Amino acid sequence: MSSPAVDYARKNHPRFLEELKSLLRIPSISALPENKGDCRHCAETLAAELKRIGMENVRLIETVSNPLVYADWLHAEGKPTVLCYGHYDVQPVDPIDEWVSQPFEPTERNGNLYARGSADDKGQIYAQVKAFESLLTSGGKLPLNVRVIFEGDEEMGGEGIAEYVASKPADLKADFALISDTEMFAPGLPTLCVGLRGMIYTEIEVKGARQDLHSGMYGGAAPNPFFALAEILTGLKDKNGHILIPGFYDSIVPPTAAELAAWKSLPFDEEHYRQTEVGSKELTGEAGYSVLERTWARPTLDVHGMPGGFIGAGAKTVIPAKALAKVSMRLVPGMTPAKVFAAYKAYVEKIAPKGVEVEVRLIHTGDPCMISTDNTYIQSATKVLKEIWDKDTVFIRSGGSIPIVGDFERHLGAPSVMMGFSLPDDNIHSPNEKFCLKNYELGIASLIRFLEDVGTKSRD
Amino acid sequence: MSSPAVDYARKNHPRFLEELKSLLRIPSISALPENKGDCRHCAETLAAELKRIGMENVRLIETVSNPLVYADWLHAEGKPTVLCYGHYDVQPVDPIDEWVSQPFEPTERNGNLYARGSADDKGQIYAQVKAFESLLTSGGKLPLNVRVIFEGDEEMGGEGIAEYVASKPADLKADFALISDTEMFAPGLPTLCVGLRGMIYTEIEVKGARQDLHSGMYGGAAPNPFFALAEILTGLKDKNGHILIPGFYDSIVPPTAAELAAWKSLPFDEEHYRQTEVGSKELTGEAGYSVLERTWARPTLDVHGMPGGFIGAGAKTVIPAKALAKVSMRLVPGMTPAKVFAAYKAYVEKIAPKGVEVEVRLIHTGDPCMISTDNTYIQSATKVLKEIWDKDTVFIRSGGSIPIVGDFERHLGAPSVMMGFSLPDDNIHSPNEKFCLKNYELGIASLIRFLEDVGTKSRD
Repeated sequence: MSSPAVDYARKNHPRFLEELKSLLRIPSISALPENKGDCRHCAETLAAELKRIGMENVRLIETVSNPLVYADWLHAEGKPTVLCYGHYDVQPVDPIDEWVSQPFEPTERNGNLYARGSADDKGQIYAQVKAFESLLTSGGKLPLNVRVIFEGDEEMGGEGIAEYVASKPADLKADFALISDTEMFAPGLPTLCVGLRGMIYTEIEVKGARQDLHSGMYGGAAPNPFFALAEILTGLKDKNGHILIPGFYDSIVPPTAAELAAWKSLPFDEEHYRQTEVGSKELTGEAGYSVLERTWARPTLDVHGMPGGFIGAGAKTVIPAKALAKVSMRLVPGMTPAKVFAAYKAYVEKIAPKGVEVEVRLIHTGDPCMISTDNTYIQSATKVLKEIWDKDTVFIRSGGSIPIVGDFERHLGAPSVMMGFSLPDDNIHSPNEKFCLKNYELGIASLIRFLEDVGTKSRD
Repeated sequence: MSSPAVDYARKNHPRFLEELKSLLRIPSISALPENKGDCRHCAETLAAELKRIGMENVRLIETVSNPLVYADWLHAEGKPTVLCYGHYDVQPVDPIDEWVSQPFEPTERNGNLYARGSADDKGQIYAQVKAFESLLTSGGKLPLNVRVIFEGDEEMGGEGIAEYVASKPADLKADFALISDTEMFAPGLPTLCVGLRGMIYTEIEVKGARQDLHSGMYGGAAPNPFFALAEILTGLKDKNGHILIPGFYDSIVPPTAAELAAWKSLPFDEEHYRQTEVGSKELTGEAGYSVLERTWARPTLDVHGMPGGFIGAGAKTVIPAKALAKVSMRLVPGMTPAKVFAAYKAYVEKIAPKGVEVEVRLIHTGDPCMISTDNTYIQSATKVLKEIWDKDTVFIRSGGSIPIVGDFERHLGAPSVMMGFSLPDDNIHSPNEKFCLKNYELGIASLIRFLEDVGTKSRD
């Protein structure tokens, strides 16, 4: 299918790449207070670019944290409206010593662009922006109505956009959403994500003595919060990786037999995955399920950090007055965050050892979600991906959460198309994050063709 | 027993108190670089006073950190030589707002002298200095040979003096050491500390994946080092607080029946201790032993911190590539740090779950120590304490380590007499540190009489 916009994108690709590098130089780390200004600067930079390419009503929307970037182009009468989503904030860069090139100095190596945020998610939102530019500049218009909403707190839980979407604002009204924040199953294999795990993120705080005590004087009498936490954590799972919270698995909707069969045919080798992606001695998880089932369709429970006491180099003999465990659970379709949290809290309080006080806090939640592959937008996406990548699209799930997908569905009635171009080994959230240069180029082409194809249809 | 030196001390007490206040005005905080000069000033002040009262060979000995203060008087031919130890450095003063009077403006209130360092340890070393002065001025000589070594880094680990002692210098040659840095078990109750726990301080490092991974993508497949650590930690103790390392308790020399009986008669109430000192819901520790046994005569195992992953505020969904547990054990007489570490390391490696790599590292060790109550110096101390305080001396142990006691024993062959006059509620290391005025006065008298009594004996 010939497309002047795709031709334009191809010709302008060197510039598109340099512009992305400029965006990647802005250290928009949402987790760090000292990068607050950088997040705003990044939002302003995106807004200016959206304005420059011809998008309208461009503005920043203030939130409890970093601003949202809004833009629209609504002159395709009778055509569907797409709400294009992505995020401009990035993960912290620690451990900085493990980066081969500096995280905020984008560097091309081996066909990749290395930088924090290159794949997650600046490379992907910028592919959207460059798709809009290619369509607007080559044809003077967009093939459908487009609304853009980029957020700057995705890595921190996305509270700002969640509140904004929950207010059901008129300027987010759309027929469907295009989420550019997912990955391809394998290099060159066009992929649509049709299922996401939900999550609850919690903290367990254990208090022992009134104040920090010396382990010489008080060792043998004062409760140690770390032992209480260790006991609680080991009580949460059995040796086979099954989570022991009563009722935890009861309401799960399992994958269909067809879905399981499709997953089996995916190019996936557990041993190769262990060696190349995880790099551990063994894989772990719930006995009786394949890796894809365990990471896509089974709930899990992880500990992310245990603040408290002495964490510096060397030796300090403190029995800390309190310690925490940061614990999250991934939820699958059928599970409800509020119900899971209540069961978890009650169970933790029950198994906590005596002698200490335990507080279980909910930090944030996200609903699990499933997208029907029958919907017209998914079918359009499937068609154009085949055209650009010359391969059949695979439907996968993601073990991660994209809470905004549930919010768009619940508050705006908009189903999501999760079409993403990062790769499994792109090291998102880790040192040496990268984005494949070819995926940036074909990603832009795919997005152009997807918008063109949906634009051939009338609004339902 | 009439003693001109004790009479002299009594008459001069008002001046002795004012002189101590002057010493306490020097903020000799060893932990803070900005107080480096104050530490040296404090050492010089002590050296000048030792010279003034007639001690000889007074000098500062440079170390990796603050200087040692040395002095001697060695003209008591045929008599024993005592090495008198204490430290002139003090703890930091935070939180400063909680001090009723300024930490470096000594203030008398309710029969106490309030100031940082008043009990720990300037009041106690100055009691030594004033005992020497009383003996030298009233009688023109000392009743035995005296060497003085004061350090300025005790609160920072005492590396300087440890190195110096390990070099076995001729000027520290002594028959026994007098340590003035311990407390009385209760007000008015003369106390000798005759046992200290040793320790090994270790780190357990667990490695799972090659790099930090996202718990959405990899939760259910990637090993989580915190779970492995939790499993190891819970495997180290059973529900009754018994440590499960094979052979751990085998070589312990338990307290004698007489020692246990003596501890039972001490004025100690576990519930009062729980409320006032620990402030926890319950006390914990090894079942079947009293608090004094658990903290003085039983080995313990504590976790001090668990570095790794995400410890900031809020939520980061990382499965950390590695995590650590800082674990120490307190050892009691009969136990050998090297043997305990070997057994611990082997056991941790054995109980570590599959799927992760575990490394167990030794950070540092200290030998446990027991002083025989049969030794002639302890018997002298016991006798004079009864005379001054009109109560039988109690023999206690301390759960903590005073590494210098082991160093004196190992490198100099000198057993220690730990005779101290601070009280359990003197708030050492906390705001409103104080020293009981009566204990300063009777402490000086006790030291004078102790030196006189040892001086009646010939060298063995």
